[in-house]
Amino acid sequence: RAVLSTTRRALQATPDELFAPADTFARRHIGVTEKEQAAMLTGLGYETMEGLISATVPAVIRRQPMKTVKPQSESEALADLRTLLSQNKIFRSHIGAGYYGTKTPPVILRNILENPGWYTPYTPYQAEISQGRLEMLLNFQTMIQDLTGMAIANCSLLDEATAAAEAMNLCFNSSTKKGQNVFYVSSDVHPQTIAVVRTRARPIGVTVRVVHHSKFELDAGDACGVLVQYPATNGTVDDFTALSKKVHEVGSKLVVASDLLALTILKPPGEFGADVVVGSAQRFGVPMGYGGPHAAFFAAKEEHKRKMPGRIIGVSRDNRGNPALRMAMQTREQHIRRDKATSNICTAQALLANTAVAYAIYHGPNGLKEIGNKVHGVATVFAEGAKQFEGVEVKSQDFFDTIHLHFKVEKAAEQVIKAARKRQINLRYIDEQNVYVSFDETNATEEAVNDLFQVLAEVTGLPVSSPAREVAKSNVKLPIIPTLARTTPFMTHPVFNSYHSETAMLRYLYFLQSKDLSLQTAMIPLGSCTMKLNATSEMIPVTWPECGALHPFVPKGQAEGYLSMMTTLEAQLADITGFHAVSLQPNSGAQGEYAGLMVIDAYQRHRGEPDRKVCLIPTSAHGTNPASASMMGMTVVVVACDEKGNIAFEDLKKKVLMHKEKLSCLMITYPSTHGVFEEAVKDVIQLVHDNGGQVYMDGANLNAQVGLCSPGGMGADVCHLNLHKTFCIPHGGGGPGMGPIGVAKHLADFLPGHPYDPRNKDSELATGAVSAAPFSSASILPISYMYLRMMGDSGLTKATEVAILNANYMLKKLKVAYPVLYTGKSGTCAHEFILDIRPFKAKSGIVEEDIAKRLQDFNFHAPTMSFPVPGTLMVEPTESEPLAELDRFCEAMLIIREEIREIEDGRADRKDNVLKNAPHTHQEVVSDSWKHPYPREKAAYPVRYLRTNKFWPTVGRLDNVYGDRNLICSCPPLETYENLS
Amino acid sequence: RAVLSTTRRALQATPDELFAPADTFARRHIGVTEKEQAAMLTGLGYETMEGLISATVPAVIRRQPMKTVKPQSESEALADLRTLLSQNKIFRSHIGAGYYGTKTPPVILRNILENPGWYTPYTPYQAEISQGRLEMLLNFQTMIQDLTGMAIANCSLLDEATAAAEAMNLCFNSSTKKGQNVFYVSSDVHPQTIAVVRTRARPIGVTVRVVHHSKFELDAGDACGVLVQYPATNGTVDDFTALSKKVHEVGSKLVVASDLLALTILKPPGEFGADVVVGSAQRFGVPMGYGGPHAAFFAAKEEHKRKMPGRIIGVSRDNRGNPALRMAMQTREQHIRRDKATSNICTAQALLANTAVAYAIYHGPNGLKEIGNKVHGVATVFAEGAKQFEGVEVKSQDFFDTIHLHFKVEKAAEQVIKAARKRQINLRYIDEQNVYVSFDETNATEEAVNDLFQVLAEVTGLPVSSPAREVAKSNVKLPIIPTLARTTPFMTHPVFNSYHSETAMLRYLYFLQSKDLSLQTAMIPLGSCTMKLNATSEMIPVTWPECGALHPFVPKGQAEGYLSMMTTLEAQLADITGFHAVSLQPNSGAQGEYAGLMVIDAYQRHRGEPDRKVCLIPTSAHGTNPASASMMGMTVVVVACDEKGNIAFEDLKKKVLMHKEKLSCLMITYPSTHGVFEEAVKDVIQLVHDNGGQVYMDGANLNAQVGLCSPGGMGADVCHLNLHKTFCIPHGGGGPGMGPIGVAKHLADFLPGHPYDPRNKDSELATGAVSAAPFSSASILPISYMYLRMMGDSGLTKATEVAILNANYMLKKLKVAYPVLYTGKSGTCAHEFILDIRPFKAKSGIVEEDIAKRLQDFNFHAPTMSFPVPGTLMVEPTESEPLAELDRFCEAMLIIREEIREIEDGRADRKDNVLKNAPHTHQEVVSDSWKHPYPREKAAYPVRYLRTNKFWPTVGRLDNVYGDRNLICSCPPLETYENLS
Ligand SMILES: Cc1ncc(COP(=O)(O)O)c(C=O)c1O
Ligand SMILES: Cc1ncc(COP(=O)(O)O)c(C=O)c1O
Ligand SMILES: O=C([O-])O
Repeated sequence: RAVLSTTRRALQATPDELFAPADTFARRHIGVTEKEQAAMLTGLGYETMEGLISATVPAVIRRQPMKTVKPQSESEALADLRTLLSQNKIFRSHIGAGYYGTKTPPVILRNILENPGWYTPYTPYQAEISQGRLEMLLNFQTMIQDLTGMAIANCSLLDEATAAAEAMNLCFNSSTKKGQNVFYVSSDVHPQTIAVVRTRARPIGVTVRVVHHSKFELDAGDACGVLVQYPATNGTVDDFTALSKKVHEVGSKLVVASDLLALTILKPPGEFGADVVVGSAQRFGVPMGYGGPHAAFFAAKEEHKRKMPGRIIGVSRDNRGNPALRMAMQTREQHIRRDKATSNICTAQALLANTAVAYAIYHGPNGLKEIGNKVHGVATVFAEGAKQFEGVEVKSQDFFDTIHLHFKVEKAAEQVIKAARKRQINLRYIDEQNVYVSFDETNATEEAVNDLFQVLAEVTGLPVSSPAREVAKSNVKLPIIPTLARTTPFMTHPVFNSYHSETAMLRYLYFLQSKDLSLQTAMIPLGSCTMKLNATSEMIPVTWPECGALHPFVPKGQAEGYLSMMTTLEAQLADITGFHAVSLQPNSGAQGEYAGLMVIDAYQRHRGEPDRKVCLIPTSAHGTNPASASMMGMTVVVVACDEKGNIAFEDLKKKVLMHKEKLSCLMITYPSTHGVFEEAVKDVIQLVHDNGGQVYMDGANLNAQVGLCSPGGMGADVCHLNLHKTFCIPHGGGGPGMGPIGVAKHLADFLPGHPYDPRNKDSELATGAVSAAPFSSASILPISYMYLRMMGDSGLTKATEVAILNANYMLKKLKVAYPVLYTGKSGTCAHEFILDIRPFKAKSGIVEEDIAKRLQDFNFHAPTMSFPVPGTLMVEPTESEPLAELDRFCEAMLIIREEIREIEDGRADRKDNVLKNAPHTHQEVVSDSWKHPYPREKAAYPVRYLRTNKFWPTVGRLDNVYGDRNLICSCPPLETYENLS
Repeated sequence: RAVLSTTRRALQATPDELFAPADTFARRHIGVTEKEQAAMLTGLGYETMEGLISATVPAVIRRQPMKTVKPQSESEALADLRTLLSQNKIFRSHIGAGYYGTKTPPVILRNILENPGWYTPYTPYQAEISQGRLEMLLNFQTMIQDLTGMAIANCSLLDEATAAAEAMNLCFNSSTKKGQNVFYVSSDVHPQTIAVVRTRARPIGVTVRVVHHSKFELDAGDACGVLVQYPATNGTVDDFTALSKKVHEVGSKLVVASDLLALTILKPPGEFGADVVVGSAQRFGVPMGYGGPHAAFFAAKEEHKRKMPGRIIGVSRDNRGNPALRMAMQTREQHIRRDKATSNICTAQALLANTAVAYAIYHGPNGLKEIGNKVHGVATVFAEGAKQFEGVEVKSQDFFDTIHLHFKVEKAAEQVIKAARKRQINLRYIDEQNVYVSFDETNATEEAVNDLFQVLAEVTGLPVSSPAREVAKSNVKLPIIPTLARTTPFMTHPVFNSYHSETAMLRYLYFLQSKDLSLQTAMIPLGSCTMKLNATSEMIPVTWPECGALHPFVPKGQAEGYLSMMTTLEAQLADITGFHAVSLQPNSGAQGEYAGLMVIDAYQRHRGEPDRKVCLIPTSAHGTNPASASMMGMTVVVVACDEKGNIAFEDLKKKVLMHKEKLSCLMITYPSTHGVFEEAVKDVIQLVHDNGGQVYMDGANLNAQVGLCSPGGMGADVCHLNLHKTFCIPHGGGGPGMGPIGVAKHLADFLPGHPYDPRNKDSELATGAVSAAPFSSASILPISYMYLRMMGDSGLTKATEVAILNANYMLKKLKVAYPVLYTGKSGTCAHEFILDIRPFKAKSGIVEEDIAKRLQDFNFHAPTMSFPVPGTLMVEPTESEPLAELDRFCEAMLIIREEIREIEDGRADRKDNVLKNAPHTHQEVVSDSWKHPYPREKAAYPVRYLRTNKFWPTVGRLDNVYGDRNLICSCPPLETYENLS
């Protein structure tokens, strides 16, 4: 609006304009201005945005407008959500069952959880600019190994229940004897874990037998493995030494679900022979968050090291021989395992693993032990004191933090629960006569114990004759049986013993953060990963207590805020995807795939076609697709792609017809992972439907669809949504994420159920639970909710258009220098495109990795390397990048092309050149023994802005061969760092 | 505590231990562990901490124990404070009067206000490692210059009222004619501004004459200057062109207090001839915070540039000729001006200036104009609509955002205020028939206007016939008179037109932050500055809405939370200082000095000794001491120090006796700025008291006293406390701070009053207001409050002891290489010590600056340079530094000593050596034309850890001579940066 003119003038604004809030969001989210968009369109030869879009998105799939949701301003949306979430009631939780109150140390809250430096990076694919979080994740592994007493640990899984299921997989897959297809699960395992294990067992042909572990009939010889909980869900701590012996005698494997805090004072499972130890790191500083996200852990014996699910950080070295960390076995993630995979885990819980280990570092081993002892001591005082009430029987003998109360009077348990709720206290209801009471860092207090005594007093009608302090004064015995007390030290590495003051911790966190390239520093143009803005107003609610302090199994009435938010979110996601119903249970894209295929499978079985087990998957698919299919017990049949990157229709037809009788489904990604809106998608879908199959759509590329077309609209039956891509949940350096699925009407009844689903909407047909909590990572849903509220439909559609515009803008700038693999019929790409690097190899020796690493010298994170096509780079800018950044990236790529030409022309050495030696650390370019044939400044400052704005990789190029040969997955001794070259 | 033994054992903890929270704070705040302390003490030759302390602190001043305050855990203290502050009632504010609702953009909230990278650095004394905030502050200056239309602006003052007082000073001091000692102030200026101007005028002999500006009698020729408000406090926008002409005709100066948002659409004061423009930048994204902290601005004509108060950032160049920013005229801060000073401003409001300009950058000129137009438009709609109510007269004709309502019925105003409050709305009550209603970014809404109409309807008994939307639809005229509409563009520099998306903004903020060395990176051992931990749990409350959303002039009943917190805080500070009463009004140390001297002066006058105007100040005093005294119209008499750093008692005695009749007071710093607990302090105080003087203690060094001794206990009469030193308020890169004063009983009645003091405790004797708001920077008081609550008395005393221990530990390590200037009688220092660098000059040419700059190559911020003694470095570690960091610093200093020796021995060149060329940027060491006689690696990595943990200064050593000659104080054109060498 122009400045005031020189005459007194009337209001120029309409009332709507005048009263509109000034803090609208879409223009903040989208990185290019309207004016810039117009110029970019002109440059591409389009007059309007619609011109570009209709040239790109096939007309047949264009959608009807979404149900109109008006955008809210940032402040409005935040205020409304706060009001909504304040309907959640925060009671003191003694529920336990895998979720405990914990105090996130403020320095960790602010500097990790609330810090874009930690929450915006991607999975550390580019190790040289990720050494900070790699170090923290290595710390996590070391902590887990130490506490569990195991040889190796990964750097997180999605939750304890799926970790247990992964353990079952490992047991089953490494069974050596025939007929070992029963997985024995103790009835003392957390119910949600049992539920998920059951879900995951059926399709792979494992029978789950749930009985008390004292009743396992292992002599039958059919056990692929056994699962026990230590301490058990009812609190009991059993000595599993004998069981372990037995298990191994019959050639089976012992999986122990355990608790990190308990392990600070309990003998670690490694010491009684566990093969695998799983559990949750939640209570190490990660808010309960109504279910998640939390980092689960998975630790195993040395012999299982190459069968471990999930990501493992390894210590390797760089090209100068200096120690350098990396994701070990990284490449399997997008490609290698495919249908040979036994796990589909990809996005995990890096941010929460980092939070948990930061908590452990801050407290140190002694601090953790102190907390463990305290929780244990207070539980003991409670157990002892509860005995003063006639009619209350304390069942627990040996326990850590959870007490089992049995009431002699019938239905007394209900009264107890009620009396507690009146005092804003939650206990764990088991049945009419039994209740469990868990203690944790937040409620191991005198007040809490006395409040509980009041509850018992009220119900029994007796006075409190011995309050907590009196009980504590008397000679209470700690109940851990001698043989189970921990005697081995843990976390002895200096990293766990150096940062106990806030100043020291703050500096360590910042030191690590500064090593990593995040969205704070530059664009991360990872194709298929959709690294868009994670806006602050989306992130703010996540750390509100209204979000964080809720136990996932609270009664419905305490979670009204959450439930109402989720109902709205489900409806909006259904509208966006064109589906009938949405499940928020899966907590990653891969989990969504699994859940979706499970729904399809249930549907096929329901209509009496149980043999439909063939899953068609194009070669271009992400590795998680075949992995998920194979976990569902499906047979993967690969479909070719044609030279344009589209599904080879004839090949598809051939395979559909060949497997007509057994066809379960086709999995497709749309737009394809080749970055193309395939014209034939509707025909493809029709073909599959005509032959009895269902169509699963991988929604990883939904960022090119929202508002323009929809999976449901084009006929797909199921689709997952990576909320951590299209819907703004940050990647957290490798997780968390959320992978809800949308389904068409005929599949809605089959959506996953959950033993603790508060909405009880399970139909009889509901399939099993896929996550530990009914809404898995509930506390990050506000991020997507805020995004949708603030963008409104208009903003969402515009975002999609600009994502496509940005990709095409870059494509045009880069195609003069690099061959572009695939485009649509108008020569346009979708929201990403693939540069073919293979042609350079012959003349220059340069491969995609060299370019990826050289980009680091320009302060950039590389595009996706060699996925979906080996020897390529896939670029996805997203709508959030500023035009200047797109230009800066293109400039870097064009300069690199010239650097390749220097080699082609013989002006640069084939081996010793800026690309092969990239990235250049400052150590390298400052070195007094610089011997490269090119100047230092060329290495470090290929463009001028780098002189004043340089992000330095902290290690040289990773030596992968060395890392592959020497798998070291815990913190190396400090001396390793002392021999730096 | 040990791990469980192998037998079942009884609780080892007492009930107190068992139930104690695990998240205690003192051990997090203090950087060295108990074990390390013991070893350090042994190294120093003491068996116990008490041994060191009694050797260091004179026995005669040791204090009684403090009133016992038990430490609270972090989570308890946070929860309690939240409960307390939730007693504050957050109404919608239409109060205005210099404080307005504003929306802090979340990206700025999280990444500046809540980011230790921005809030923990010190004032940018070391320019090379401060280019980030220097750039932001330069942006601030440029924004102010543009919006006000003035040639030069500083980078913040404490508040609008003191800025106006500074303007009066400038006018008075640059008066050219005799008898120009009247400062005319329009009655339309904000009342708090008038109050502060009055306070500041009296002591310097200026008469303040408050009348409506139409009634200024300038022909009298006695005006040193005039002050008007534009827009006025009642909302009116007057055309001051004629006044300006008149003012200049009579040889006087025009000061305009203005409003940045109004200036987006109003003609800037520079265009009608203002000499000085002052105001507050609060409404640019800085929460009201019950009064502050906010950045005030001060802009002036070119001719006043060397008389500007406060800090000014200038564009200079570095030793390679590249552009580089620095604090222009920096050295005057601690030394130069002293008693010639007309301003004592030192700590200012850097963090808030940065926040405000970030807001402006994010919105850009067009966004700001939009907000300005909107606020103006909605105010217009309200004014128009208010006319529908019979009995309500809209007095305002020409206005920006504030409407003056006059009620025909007597006492109607009270009813209006009441009816509004019922709806949780605050208006500004003027008198029984007059109310002002202000609009801002948060309440320029349809709802707010309609609510106000409801209020008027209720009071007049009439219906709302035209609601806001109806009024807005009709042809409302915007009331700005044509000649006052802004026509000049502003903020045209690219920096204001590039970062409008959140991604772009986030990266710009991070880019700047990364250039600066803060406490996140390393120790900042600035003597006298007490750079201790600013703990997260102290910082968290500051950005709670309960803290931020309160207008400073709300009625008492809406601020119960604040008031109760402040009462507790005052009591604790009184206990700590040994005083009877505390005033929280001064918002910096220097302000405290001023207020304290004012109290002393009032006391002397009260007891009938108005001629006591001599203020004795030792040579070692901070520059603000004499500056404050001279602002109080006192005569400064300097007292010598002896060779041990103590006040030269004989000289003192001589001067006391010489000025016996006129002695007002002595100002001393304790422990002295030489880092010594002077043994004779009680004798010194006695001597002054015996001769009719009072003793003012500068509390900057209170970190060496808390719990061990106290100003009151040793007999001082007044003392200020820098809450931003001893009490954990972060320095914010140069502010905010708080400088409350404590006073002995006989002075309590003289503490500053304030026109809006809600506690109305002004005695008749109260002196005038010294700050714009009654508690000035109220919203940062929770930081100190939290600190005191979490430390408890035991923790506070321990902190002091460790601060002294750390200093002595370093002293011992360093004295082998550097002469230490002063120590106490046992050879110990207090909490800081001075290294004498002067002896090195002759043999090596090395001066203190060379060492300071070389320390940057080691990732360190230099100690305080040349204060209090030229040619020295003063080191203050504080209690928060980890032992490893103390060692790392000492190691650096010892290596530097060896580097000096290389020059002394002729092994290194006298001119071209690592010290003279320090700091080394990466550009320098990577340069292909490196020509220094020493190796690059020696320059960059004098110690091994720097290879993997290097903080790079972003410019080479500043060229101060060039900067002094070429004072450029706004953003230079981009081309400046394009000719980098
Ligand atoms: C096409 C595609 N499918 C599936 C996935 C797996 O999603 P998640 O990492 O959330 O498990 C990805 C992840 O990058 C992907 O790009
Ligand atoms: C001894 C001494 N007195 C006074 C001051 C001024 O305090 P402030 O910067 O808060 O105005 C300082 C600041 O460093 C100081 O060190
Ligand atoms: O892939 C690895 O085994 O490191």
